[in-house]
Amino acid sequence: MSASDLALIPFVSVQNMMRLILEIGTETCIAEIETYLEEDFRRWPLFDKTPRVASHSHEGVIELMPTSDGIEYGFKYVNGHPKNMKDGLQTVTAFGVLASVDTGYPLLFAEMTILTALRTAATSALATKYLAPKGATTMAMIGNGAQAEFQALALKTVCGISKVRLFDVDPKATEKCARNLAGSGMTVIKCATPEEAILGAQIITTCTADKKNATVLSDNMVGAGVHINGIGGDCPGKTELHRDIVMRSDVFVEYPEQTRIEGEIQQMPEDFPITELWQVMTGEKPGRTDDAQQITLFDGVGFAIEDFSALRWLRDKVSNGRFCHMLDMVADPDDPRDLFGMVQRERERMSAA
Amino acid sequence: MSASDLALIPFVSVQNMMRLILEIGTETCIAEIETYLEEDFRRWPLFDKTPRVASHSHEGVIELMPTSDGIEYGFKYVNGHPKNMKDGLQTVTAFGVLASVDTGYPLLFAEMTILTALRTAATSALATKYLAPKGATTMAMIGNGAQAEFQALALKTVCGISKVRLFDVDPKATEKCARNLAGSGMTVIKCATPEEAILGAQIITTCTADKKNATVLSDNMVGAGVHINGIGGDCPGKTELHRDIVMRSDVFVEYPEQTRIEGEIQQMPEDFPITELWQVMTGEKPGRTDDAQQITLFDGVGFAIEDFSALRWLRDKVSNGRFCHMLDMVADPDDPRDLFGMVQRERERMSAA
Repeated sequence: MSASDLALIPFVSVQNMMRLILEIGTETCIAEIETYLEEDFRRWPLFDKTPRVASHSHEGVIELMPTSDGIEYGFKYVNGHPKNMKDGLQTVTAFGVLASVDTGYPLLFAEMTILTALRTAATSALATKYLAPKGATTMAMIGNGAQAEFQALALKTVCGISKVRLFDVDPKATEKCARNLAGSGMTVIKCATPEEAILGAQIITTCTADKKNATVLSDNMVGAGVHINGIGGDCPGKTELHRDIVMRSDVFVEYPEQTRIEGEIQQMPEDFPITELWQVMTGEKPGRTDDAQQITLFDGVGFAIEDFSALRWLRDKVSNGRFCHMLDMVADPDDPRDLFGMVQRERERMSAA
Repeated sequence: MSASDLALIPFVSVQNMMRLILEIGTETCIAEIETYLEEDFRRWPLFDKTPRVASHSHEGVIELMPTSDGIEYGFKYVNGHPKNMKDGLQTVTAFGVLASVDTGYPLLFAEMTILTALRTAATSALATKYLAPKGATTMAMIGNGAQAEFQALALKTVCGISKVRLFDVDPKATEKCARNLAGSGMTVIKCATPEEAILGAQIITTCTADKKNATVLSDNMVGAGVHINGIGGDCPGKTELHRDIVMRSDVFVEYPEQTRIEGEIQQMPEDFPITELWQVMTGEKPGRTDDAQQITLFDGVGFAIEDFSALRWLRDKVSNGRFCHMLDMVADPDDPRDLFGMVQRERERMSAA
């Protein structure tokens, strides 16, 4: 590959991401990303890991999430602004880059608002596959915002869930979610209270957006034999579960250094016992040991390696040149030491054109 | 501004960056950026500051450099791969984003390989303006690579330097640099040794790329009454000056937490005295106090705030819609909670088109 080829970086726009999903199907996208995720979770120790770099303000947070497997480097820019919604803006938007460790040159630049929704859903499905009680068929979905449909379809396609029970403090969100899932083949039940939503559910997924310590689930609501994906509690001061639920649960996390700051376990002492999810996958640590007596909690906050997996998937998907266009992102002088001369020679190219 | 307007982000490509520079002129660009830099250095304490997040490999480094003034947030992706040059690739490439702290939405996405050269040169000029002996007319430029011409023009336009003495271990680099500066109005002298280059120079700028502890300048070469811009030593294990020179100098830095790890002062004890450059500008600390007896050393490693200043300048330059095009980077559903529905409705748009 010549330098000039490397200077043009494939870019996946929002529109191209949507068209890719429409061509392949949302469920297939999620199922494929889940296999990339599992591959990367199984080689977790070799990644260069660091807690995300967060810039907090009164209104929200902007984060950079880098990681590397030694061959490729990836990072995501992502914001979280709960107050955006009332202004008609997304709470979470994201974009990211995959790059070559060998040259430092970018390999792919992509929208990641939609891709993050896919990878977050795929991560819940991956955790659920390893942790839910056998034969689980029903999920309660608490919080019916931008993530909800993706979570439901992920658990359908990866874990065989056939029934979803929806609750949101805003009934309009539940209506929207039920409408979007109408043709999915799942049985969709709109519920008026969280208590109603969790009736008969072996899996409970919480995904709410308020930047505060909330109690989406209180202790007396949750019985044993349940798996919880706690997705919405993902920054300091933002939790969803009563600490007594956390206390009764076996807790599984992505990257402890980050989860202890951002996850549900920020409510717990520093040495509160947790298991790293990758260790369950490699068989180093037990996952669920009892279908009836145990509560498993995946305290998901989202980690850079998951974005890396998603970017790897996307790069492979667009390697044929479809669903992307080339961006003139990297300066590429014929003589790499002659950046100045390159700018000057552009004048000649402009005159010639 | 509607959500849809916010979803399209202005992008400054390499070509547009070159055309902007050609229209305005390199010197004017640097002079303008220098004023943005000075503005931000003067309000240094209010910035959200963190050392850059570096991912080191055997071949190089990939870094993310974020900062925020509370109103806007900026970050740069930048690599440093000295071995790239022999493969015809750039040692340093970069791109970056300016975003709104209030919404987390990006405001500008830009190539920064060329922009970094401009801001690095402007930063040297800013430091030199405050620290060089009065009446300085001659700069020795040690290292005639991709940065060299920008450094020379910056010191011409901001500091009134009229003569530049060039040295590089590779005479071809010196030839290239001399050729590019031929029409600049500066007197350009090609030198065969570093000793020759620094003859009669009141300012010495070192900008070499080897990722190792080198001795571009040895102690006996440097007399008093000189200002040094040490630009090339910018990561752990990469320095340019003999420690005895550093010992004899009054050292000025951008962000001590980063410079003690990455700069020339990584050779010195933890408590080696330094002055923060911004404090010289605000008058809190003295800069040069003696034109004849003192060596001042600007131990420049590059800091995120400088990229922030450069991105602010670029945003203002392209605010009229010229030299950029709009990128479909942020997903923008009509109902922010209906990301899933947005993807589905793209199918209808595709059918309608």
